[in-house]
Order: sequence, then structure tokens, then C-alpha cells
Amino acid sequence: MNASPEPDRLAKRRANLKKLVNARSIAFVGGRQAASAISYCKAIGFEGDVWAVNPKQTEVDGVPCFHSVKDLPSVPDATWVAVSTERTIETIADLNAMGAPSAVVYTAGFSETGDGELERQLIDAAGDMAVVGPNCIGVVNYLDGVPIALTPGLGVERPDHGVALIAQSGTIIGNMVFSERSLPISHLFSMGNQSVTEIADAVDVLADDPRVDAILLYIEGLRDASSFAQAATRSFNHGKPLIALKAGVSEMGRELALTHTGSLAGSPELYDALFDRLGIIKADTFPELLEMSKLFAHNGVPQGNRLLVETCSGTDSGYCADLAERHGVDLPALSEPVRQAVAEVIPTIATASNPLDVTMEQWGDRLAQAKSLVTMLAEPADAAALVINFPSRGDTTSYDPAAEAMLDVKAATDLPCYVITNLPEGAPDWMRTMLAEHGIITLQGMEDAFACIGKGARYVTERDALAAVGGPETRLLSCSPLEAIGSLSEAESKSRLGAFGLPVPESALCNTAGDAVRAARAMGLPVVVKGHGEELAHKSELGAVAVNLGDEKAVHDAATAILALQGIEQVLVDAMVTDAVAEIIVGIKRDATLGMGLMLGSGGILTELMRDTMTLLLPTTPEAIGVALGRLRGYQLLTGFRDRPAGDVEALIAAVSSVAAFAEAHVATLQELDINPIMVRPEGKGVMAVDALVRMGKPQT
Amino acid sequence: MNASPEPDRLAKRRANLKKLVNARSIAFVGGRQAASAISYCKAIGFEGDVWAVNPKQTEVDGVPCFHSVKDLPSVPDATWVAVSTERTIETIADLNAMGAPSAVVYTAGFSETGDGELERQLIDAAGDMAVVGPNCIGVVNYLDGVPIALTPGLGVERPDHGVALIAQSGTIIGNMVFSERSLPISHLFSMGNQSVTEIADAVDVLADDPRVDAILLYIEGLRDASSFAQAATRSFNHGKPLIALKAGVSEMGRELALTHTGSLAGSPELYDALFDRLGIIKADTFPELLEMSKLFAHNGVPQGNRLLVETCSGTDSGYCADLAERHGVDLPALSEPVRQAVAEVIPTIATASNPLDVTMEQWGDRLAQAKSLVTMLAEPADAAALVINFPSRGDTTSYDPAAEAMLDVKAATDLPCYVITNLPEGAPDWMRTMLAEHGIITLQGMEDAFACIGKGARYVTERDALAAVGGPETRLLSCSPLEAIGSLSEAESKSRLGAFGLPVPESALCNTAGDAVRAARAMGLPVVVKGHGEELAHKSELGAVAVNLGDEKAVHDAATAILALQGIEQVLVDAMVTDAVAEIIVGIKRDATLGMGLMLGSGGILTELMRDTMTLLLPTTPEAIGVALGRLRGYQLLTGFRDRPAGDVEALIAAVSSVAAFAEAHVATLQELDINPIMVRPEGKGVMAVDALVRMGKPQT
Repeated sequence: MNASPEPDRLAKRRANLKKLVNARSIAFVGGRQAASAISYCKAIGFEGDVWAVNPKQTEVDGVPCFHSVKDLPSVPDATWVAVSTERTIETIADLNAMGAPSAVVYTAGFSETGDGELERQLIDAAGDMAVVGPNCIGVVNYLDGVPIALTPGLGVERPDHGVALIAQSGTIIGNMVFSERSLPISHLFSMGNQSVTEIADAVDVLADDPRVDAILLYIEGLRDASSFAQAATRSFNHGKPLIALKAGVSEMGRELALTHTGSLAGSPELYDALFDRLGIIKADTFPELLEMSKLFAHNGVPQGNRLLVETCSGTDSGYCADLAERHGVDLPALSEPVRQAVAEVIPTIATASNPLDVTMEQWGDRLAQAKSLVTMLAEPADAAALVINFPSRGDTTSYDPAAEAMLDVKAATDLPCYVITNLPEGAPDWMRTMLAEHGIITLQGMEDAFACIGKGARYVTERDALAAVGGPETRLLSCSPLEAIGSLSEAESKSRLGAFGLPVPESALCNTAGDAVRAARAMGLPVVVKGHGEELAHKSELGAVAVNLGDEKAVHDAATAILALQGIEQVLVDAMVTDAVAEIIVGIKRDATLGMGLMLGSGGILTELMRDTMTLLLPTTPEAIGVALGRLRGYQLLTGFRDRPAGDVEALIAAVSSVAAFAEAHVATLQELDINPIMVRPEGKGVMAVDALVRMGKPQT
Repeated sequence: MNASPEPDRLAKRRANLKKLVNARSIAFVGGRQAASAISYCKAIGFEGDVWAVNPKQTEVDGVPCFHSVKDLPSVPDATWVAVSTERTIETIADLNAMGAPSAVVYTAGFSETGDGELERQLIDAAGDMAVVGPNCIGVVNYLDGVPIALTPGLGVERPDHGVALIAQSGTIIGNMVFSERSLPISHLFSMGNQSVTEIADAVDVLADDPRVDAILLYIEGLRDASSFAQAATRSFNHGKPLIALKAGVSEMGRELALTHTGSLAGSPELYDALFDRLGIIKADTFPELLEMSKLFAHNGVPQGNRLLVETCSGTDSGYCADLAERHGVDLPALSEPVRQAVAEVIPTIATASNPLDVTMEQWGDRLAQAKSLVTMLAEPADAAALVINFPSRGDTTSYDPAAEAMLDVKAATDLPCYVITNLPEGAPDWMRTMLAEHGIITLQGMEDAFACIGKGARYVTERDALAAVGGPETRLLSCSPLEAIGSLSEAESKSRLGAFGLPVPESALCNTAGDAVRAARAMGLPVVVKGHGEELAHKSELGAVAVNLGDEKAVHDAATAILALQGIEQVLVDAMVTDAVAEIIVGIKRDATLGMGLMLGSGGILTELMRDTMTLLLPTTPEAIGVALGRLRGYQLLTGFRDRPAGDVEALIAAVSSVAAFAEAHVATLQELDINPIMVRPEGKGVMAVDALVRMGKPQT
């Protein structure tokens, strides 16, 4: 994890970023791109001072030029910089010397070229300034008409509320702005290289603006996860949701697919864990990111997952049922009184049910279509929807009554109301706008619509659960990279973990087969005999593990065979667990950005066949560990699966908590650890960690 | 399975449907809808005879009316019928009497209302006629300008090739036609209730038209799966792919989630099995159905999964990598000579790699952008793509060179070339058209684009494999519903299956604990003792199974305890398999539409934790069984998992084949069977079915 800036500097930078977002004076330094940016101020109707700086020109886009920022009539709230890398650094230094609070650096050619030196100079030059970029297309505050950005092509509409877009990439920002989704946009932040100001800072600045409905994040990487966690928590506490699409999942997955545990856990899972912990909604696709945000922009998040749907065809109704099942949306069956009431207001060839296919017989009859769905609303539900699809061209007037029927439905209910189109392109601009003005949300594309309704309902549940425990846990562990100094032996690993409360079996380290037999006799049969040594992983594959040894001869034979293997000097004799109902693996991975990840998974053959794992970030709580265990598919084995006894979940949670405590206590030196597995015995009988491997490191020099 | 019509009648109907599709004379019977349909003939430029029939009007949409179809100047090739249900039946009877080959019935109110009588009358009236519908919006042959359909709103373009759309629902047909995807459409068939003419007939008629690039199916249900399989095979043999979206998956899933096996197998899996067998591409979403078809409409199916990609941002490149991994697309790394050559033609701040981010420095430079990607083409690959996204409004001229660069790339390669837009709406109409004219495919939305490229490549592999074995197996078993007559006992089930070659353990049925001990002694310890009786399922949950009994006392105790359980009169003593490396479950389900499904799955606890199953339709082959086994995640256990021995896969395939043979031999009376599990022993040691339950039935009366 990169060192966070001192709290003081961070606070100053964020205050400065706020000045940038609300700038009343902007200086534009550069030529062609400065001209374009100035034209944006005019186009959107920026009401403050606009100054141009260019030593070689007399005017830029009609604005007279100053020779240098030092010649400006006063200190600008924000400055747009689009000059060479060298002059960029000079300009930032000049601005800093003048006491200027902020700048946006369009100029590219810094760390993204692989050269960190220029970027270090830029950071030094910036001091406490809020510098956005470099290598970004800028920042726009649409609500107040403040653009410090490349081109008026990014839009000049000034809504009175909307969703904020934050991404590193200008391309992604552009794609979101240029989408055909009628999304009111409050701000955009293209963060570029995040050299000085980060995604976290943009979130922090937006967190308490009541006009911002939600914050959309396209995250390629975070520099400072702690700072992000704090800002996200502030946003959470202000009731403002974050919706994130995490990109670069595959690369990071590959990077970390090095060791056994790493191939199962790794960074994408850590990001999921971070989002979970902070109550951030995770979008799986780009269209989903946009559609999801509509629920918040138009106050249409369902408080539960029960949806009433009206369609004009049995086919649409059938497909709704498929999608509802796929995305966890409940289509409640109509109770008998409601069914009867609905039957009276639909055509005789139609069947009263949910989804309700009113058939094409009601086509064109606004009042009848509305009445069908309004009557259905007597059934308890969380949202109402009409499925329809407009032709993208030609005369569509025959479709108008269907869309307008939804206005009557909305007038009759406080529930969120949606018009869902079959295809993303199935909703003309005028219809989306007309519906939005009446508080109805057009969800474009049935698949994304149902995904968003399902996720929206789950968000409400998880948000409330998080609020009930006082909001997100913000603290993360700081994990600078370590230099490997090797593994502890199994005996040492178990002993160290045991000292923190992890139950481990009675065990003896023996030099000869005779010692092994005596040890087994003392602890009672059956036992397990394993080869022992430092750096000895994958013992099973080596033939260095013999389990279920039920008599002394078997112990003797096994110990003799294992001691004969190359590189093995000792055997470990462990009392054997014979009544396990399930095996759980536990791992700890160190991540330079996100701190420490605690991985839980189904053990035994399930580990590799199912890849059934959950990851939590440290620090964590017994409650969070319990929730994560409950989400494993293999959790069924712990709750009394078929004719088996239930497992001792309480003891398991305590054992995992002790592993977490061990990791926290050794944050400075723990590289990773792997417990494979913890045997979970029947309720009341506890658990036992039968194998463990701890790898330590030392700070890199 | 419904009785197929006699082959003779089927052949006549299909010949008649061909006359409908190529009609040179069309009669329109009805009022308002007939007028609309007639206006469609004019709008598309139909060159044949158009006649109107209406006893109460003198003209419909300017066409003079005949009083009845019997008064027409000659027998029409096709007739559009939109009158009352009663008059519809009369009209079809009149047409049949006249020797008319075909009709499209728009009229609704037949079987979809739950009343089968009217539909039976319609079917009787139709005789050998090809009657499409009822309750459909019609049939259009765009290629030749022949519309027998509701409205010119369905489109009047007449391409010289395209994809055919077949669905029951008019709504879905409309949505496909109204999409913004630049998809050339050859035909549309709205099949309605499929009372006479089915989806299979439409496929058959289109199968050998070389102008049809692919056939898109939105399937809610098939009436006659055998007929469909034959038509699909004809299409396959003509090299014409079918792309299907199966709807109603959730309902059918629920219907069949009755028994243990049923909840894992069931109809959606059987449809998947049908599509697999017939080489049909399965679309998972509606946009995917449309995007997928573009690959075929524009001759752009990749012959493998290696894709070279150029983008204008690192973000897009990163997201490409994520999507490629998610959808099985390979982004080959550049070999050193290619990497060097690419490095010479890209900006210095860019990095030569695949995906290639040329950065915005090449923005607007058509030649430079083209050169980057053309240089990359020296790397062996199967397709090339450019990722870009156009604003949906405003001036987009600065984007033109990027799109045009792709023309130069296409001119330099025979590989399929794609322009991929970030969002579905990110491609203006003119650009899609311009690119299509040059043989370049615009894939709308990055997620769908990568999904389609991955599926396209897999289709080619699977198509070639299917062709190598002589094409699809068309035959399905005919399985009329049975009346249950109960289960065979375990001993009887194993004995009957054993007679077909399924290996079962040495076994003895015993009345007393003493008999059980003697039997165990004779067959050798350890043994398994199980309660035995007809209708005795879930023995484990009852406590009626004791495994691994290693001495005679244990056998005696277990037998005594089990014989004391209520309802158990006998115990089965089985020799025990002690060296199983994996367990496989096998089930047979009877399905009235699709015949017999053979379900294979990972057994033991994996059955319910992983739901790891594959389904095949009978008849099948050892090769197909081997492929299905290989697709189980649990197959890893059979190939030598970690330190375990490999399983006897050859014997397993033979055992499963014997179960299939048993099912085929008992097709008239087998309700279902469940083998849970087959123990797979190490290579060369065979397999053993240790539990089996066969349920028989008798024909319903």
C-alpha cells in the first residue's frame, strides 16, 4: 500500500479540489486544446472569469492572452494546462507559488510512458494543490456550469441533479456522456494518472452534495485504498451510493495466480471484498453501470425484490419469468381477490397473472392498459413495470398510449415504476424524457433491466444491514511489500497459530519410526504420520503423508517409508480427526494496495473442483466471517447435509477469527499463510486445523 | 411426444409452405387488418396478383372485393385470413376444397384461450394446406418482396441476402425487425400457435435457399422435436447455421423439479442437449441473438478464437482483456519481430502489444491507425478488430478516419474484421452501413461482441466435429406419457440393468442377520448391508445403509438393526468397492417432447453442491458419452487428480452405454431410472453401479 499523504495535506488537497469544482475563475494555458476548453465555458454558460495564457498568441478563442500565469489579474480558482511536459511542471510550480488551489493537466507523457521522474517533479511542483491528471480530459460540474475540460462535445446540459461519473480514462467518460440513456449527469471527473488527486478525492468532494444522486466509478486501480475507503464511507453515510465497474480483472488475476492459494484468491477477489465492505454496488458490464444509476437518478430503487409486470405478449411474459429467476427478482403470484379484480379489467382472451399479458387487444387503449396494472397494484409489491419496445424509426404514434398508460399508473402508486424495453435501443429519446419527467424510469434492454432491479433490491438489504452495524469498517491494514525469508515448518506454523487460539491436534515430532510408534501410543490411535521439514509443501504428492493409521505396525511402516524419502529427516505424528463433517481452507494473502485478504473456501476435493471461496479484507469481525462462510456453496455441509450431523460453526468462526488475529498481529512480517484444511467436527465438538503453512518476510531494503 | 404427421402429409405441407413463401397471388380476407396487409404488398412492391375478400365492402385499400374466396378468379398461392374464428375455419375449409396450398391466419382466440376444440376444427379444415398461425402476424419473404403480414411497418427493404427470423410471437419478430443493428433480413415467420405449420416447417423451407445466411429462432416450445431435428439437420447439411434463444426455461425448470434427478436434469437441459446434438448455436440474451447473426450475415465467423485488437485507450485495452478471458477469446501476444514492427508505426508513448492501444495521438489519422493494425496482422490470428465508440449526437466527423481506417485493414486481409463499439448505441446507422458494404461487421456493445466472437469460434470447432461424424444424429425416441406403476426394488433394478451389461456388485438378498453373515463370508469382507424393499428410496436418510462392514459381528449388528426398521423385511448384502477414485451418477428422464434424456453427473456430495451435470438425448453414442463426461467439472477426478490414480473411463463409458441401451430397449415402459452412484475404480479395474432405482410405467389409457 502506498503511503497515504499526511492527513493535513489530504484535507488541504480536498478543500482545493472543492474550489476547482466550484471555480469562479479559470485560466486556460495552451494553444489548440485551451481554445477548445475555453469554447466549452462559453457553450455551457460559465459565469465566472475566463483567462487565456499563451506566450506566443495574442488571443485564444477570442480571449486575450496573458504571457504567463504570473501575469494573471488574480489567482485563478482553477487552471487548465495543455502544454509540453516541461512547461506543465513549470506552470504548476508557478501556480503553487502564487497560492493557486488547483489545476487540471491535460498533457500526457508522464508515468504512463514508464518514466516516473517527470511525474515525481510534477508531484513536487503541486505541493498542496489539487492537481487532476496528468493525461486526463478534465473535470465538469454540470450542475453549476463549470467546465475545466477538453471540449463542449462533453455536453452543455445543466440539470438540477444527476449522477457523477468518475474514471481515469477520458474514453470511458466520453462513452458514458455520449450514451443514449437519458441519464442526468451532475459531474464528470477524468482522473488520468491520478498522480496527485485520486478517485478517492473526487468521491470525497461529491459525497455531501445533495444534488448528486449516485457516483459511478470505472476503476482500473486505486493508489490509496485507505483513502478511498474513507471517502466511500463518507458517501455511504450521506446516503449516496457508489456503483463501480472494476476493470483489469483478468490481468491482476494472472499476476497473482502464482501459488496455490493465490490462484484462488488474488486481487479481483480483494476488490470484491472491498466493495462488499463499503456497500458499493458492483456492475458487471458497462450498460449495467449506466442502467443501474438510473434507479438512483430517478429515485426508483426498489425496497424489495417483488415486481409486478404488465406486457403485451405471452412471449414477453415468459421471458420476464426467465430473467426474474436468473437475477433474483420475485414475480409474486396474484392472490385470489386481486386475480379476480384483474380478470375483470383485461380482455377475455387474457389470463390474470403476474407477469400480466394484456394481449394486443388492449393495444392503443391508454386507460385500459393503465387500469390493468393499477388493479394489479393491490398485490403487495416493491415496484411495477411495463414491458414494451418502440420501433427505432417510422411512425410510432400507435405506441404512445402504452407509454402514457404508465403515467396513470405512476399517479396511482408510490412504488418505483419502470418502462422496460426489450432491446437497449427500443426507447426513443422523447419517450425516455417524457417518462423521466413524471418520475418513471426507462430501463433499456430486458436483461439489464432485470439485473438492475435484482441488484437494486439486494443493495437496499445490504445497505440497511451495514447501517445497522454503524456503517462500513473503513480501516485497512497497511502492507508494504516484503522480501521472502521462507516458510515456517508445519510444526512451527501450527504452534504459532495455536498460540493465537487456533485449535491444532496433539502432535509429536519424531526422528525415528520407534519414536513415532511411542508417540502414537501415547496420544491414542488412529494417527496421521507426515514428513516434516522447512519448505516442504505438497507433502501428499510426495507420498509423505499417511492417514488413518489404526495400529502400531502401520505407524511403524509409514514412518519408516516416509523417513526414507529424500530430504526428510523427521516425521510429525498427529492425533487424527475421525469425525469431520466438512473441511474448510483458510488463507491470508498480502496485497500492496488492499492490505490483507482472508480467504475462506470449501476444502478437500471441493477446493479445486468448485473454486468455492469468499474473501474478506482485514480487519474483520466474527459476524463478517459468519456471513462469508454462509455464502460458500459448501456451507451446506456445515448445516446438516442430508443424513450428516451439522458442523460446529461457532468453533469454526472462532478459529478463523484467531487466524485473522494472528495476521493482524504480524502485519509487518507475514507474507502469506495457508491452512488446508480446518476439519469441522459435529456441533459442540470443535474444529481442528490439521495442516498449516506460514510464510514470513522482511521489509524490502 | 406428439404424433408426427405421416411423412407424406408433412412433405405436402412443406411443399405448400414453399408456395406461400414464393406466392405469386395473394388473397386478403377481412377488413381493417386485410387493408393494412394489402398496403404492405404495395409498399414492398409485390409483383403478383392481390385480391381482397369481404362480403360487406366493395373495396379494401383500393382493391375491389370478392364476396367469398370461392369467387376468386383463380386459386391463390397464399391467403391472409383476419376474420372471426368461425369464419376463419369456414374460409380455410373453402380454400382447402378449392385446392389452395396455403394461408396465414392472423385471427386469435384458438388454443391460447385454453379451448382446444376450435383449433381441432381448424386443423381438420386445413387438410394438407400449409396454414401458418393462428394468432400470428404473418410471413414475409423480403428477398423476393412477398409479404403476407400485418403491416408495412415490418419493413420494405429487399436485400439480396440476409438472416431469417422465426418466432411464435409477433412481438419478438417486431423487436428484431425494429432493432438498430443493420441486420439484413431475408424472411420473417411469425408462427403463432403452430397449430398446423411449425417452426420446423419454416426451417425446412429456408434450409436450402443460398440467400439465407442464418436462421434465427426464438423458441418457446416445439411441438414435434423429431420433425425439428430433421429440418435442423437439413439446414446443417446445407451449411446454414441455426441460432436459437430458448425462452420459458424457468417455468419448465419448475415443472420438472419434482424428483431428485428431475431437479438436476429436466427440460431446459434437454433443450440444450437437443441444440448441442444438432449443432445449433445457443444465444443467452436477445441482443446476443442479433449480434451473433451478424457474423453469418456478413461472412465474418472467425475460424478460431485468436483476435488482434486495436483501441485508442489503455482502458479499452484492459477491458478487452477482461472480456476476452470471460468469453474464451484468445488475444495472442505479439511475437518479437511483429512487436518490433508495430513499435515502429505507433506513437512513441504507445506500447506495442495485443490489445494495441495506439493512444489518442493517432486520432484522426486514418493511414496511421490502419498501418498499426495492418502491421499487427503479421501475427497469426483469426480475426481483427478496432474498438471505438461514436457519440450518438452532435458532430462526429472527427471519428470518421478511425472507422475508415478499418476499410484499409479489410483491404489488407482475408480475416474477418470487426468494429466493436463500447455501448450498443455507439454506432451510427451510416457507419454500420458503410462498414457492412465493405464486408466489415459492426459489433455493438463490447460485452456482446466478445461473447459472439467466442461463440462463433466454438461453433466452427463443433460444426466441424459434427460434420466429421457425418452430421447430426436426427433420430429421437418417441416417448408418450406413461402412467406410473411403481419402482422396481434395488435388487431387481440392478439385475435388469446388469443384463444389459452394467457392472453391479456381487449381492445377496437375505431374510435374517444370520443369512447376511453367511453371504458376507461367502463374498468376502468388507460388505455393505442395505434395507431392501419396493418403493424404498432415500435409504441413507432412513438409516438403512451400513457401509464398510469389515468383520462378521459388524455385519450381524447392522443387519439386525436394519431389519428392525419399519417396512423393511429383507437386507441386501453387497460386496463393497474400496478403491473408487470417483463417483458418477446416471439418470434417465422421459420427456413427452424431446424423448429420453440421459443425465450424467458428479456423484457423492458433489451432486448437490455442484449441480455438475450434462445431459444427452437418446439415442447416443459412446463418443458422445465420452465428450459429455469430459465436460463435467468433476471429470478431473477421473484423470488422476492430484495424487490419486486415474479412473477407468473406458469401463465407465461402456457402463453408461449399457444404461442407454437398457433405456432404448424399454422406451415403451420406462418412466425413469437413477443410478447413484457408479463407483469408478482405477484404470483397468472397471466400474460398479452400487445403487440403482428403475421406475416403470404403462401407457396411459
